Amino acid sequence: MASIFTKIIQRQIPAHIIAEDEQCIAFLDIMPLTMGHTLIVPKVEEDYIFDLEDSTFTRLNLFAKKVSKAIRKATGCKRMGVAVLGMEVPHAHIHLVPMNNMSDMNFANPKLKLSNEQLADMAEQIRKSF
Amino acid sequence: MASIFTKIIQRQIPAHIIAEDEQCIAFLDIMPLTMGHTLIVPKVEEDYIFDLEDSTFTRLNLFAKKVSKAIRKATGCKRMGVAVLGMEVPHAHIHLVPMNNMSDMNFANPKLKLSNEQLADMAEQIRKSF
Repeated sequence: MASIFTKIIQRQIPAHIIAEDEQCIAFLDIMPLTMGHTLIVPKVEEDYIFDLEDSTFTRLNLFAKKVSKAIRKATGCKRMGVAVLGMEVPHAHIHLVPMNNMSDMNFANPKLKLSNEQLADMAEQIRKSF
Repeated sequence: MASIFTKIIQRQIPAHIIAEDEQCIAFLDIMPLTMGHTLIVPKVEEDYIFDLEDSTFTRLNLFAKKVSKAIRKATGCKRMGVAVLGMEVPHAHIHLVPMNNMSDMNFANPKLKLSNEQLADMAEQIRKSF
């Protein structure tokens, strides 16, 4: 069965998409730790990120670097936190978490409760920042 | 002034080094979240990881991928957690955190207190796993 991320890639499930190329996609995490929290996902459905081919893995990381710049511009965060946990959805993904403090990237923190409109606004601001 | 990581690279400060090439180095975090917690550091002293040149950034990530494989083999962990916080030492670095549970990569967790011998043993096991 297709992963939830593949369903987003195939537009079977809606998402607040930030950017996309042939191999990668970026969309907002709907349970964000901080405003602008984004997931960077390879289109190929590989479970474990380090099992990706070197070329795909490299492409994914460079895509994250590029998207990170736009998120930082849109959110004004001090730094972009990066995390791969790999124990949630079985489809490799990188969390980009806008940080202003060390404690911002604690996955045990309560998630922000944002409306669909707030997420759509955030996504729009990031898209404009490329 | 040279960062603490540059001092490790220049062998002015001791560390449990796992692997090294012309551009990158890997050594154990002396305040590990879990056994085998390793830092992946570019030799160039750049503060923010996304400010690295694409080529150095790519090299660093591929180095992390390679080291991750050895750590997993040595520790038997389920997954390798990856994190960049960027608010501790002002010299870019990737945390590789061997994970068996989602909660293993919570930087608010108390750190393991390991003796120098325990760290040396761990480093040796990882070096043997390449």
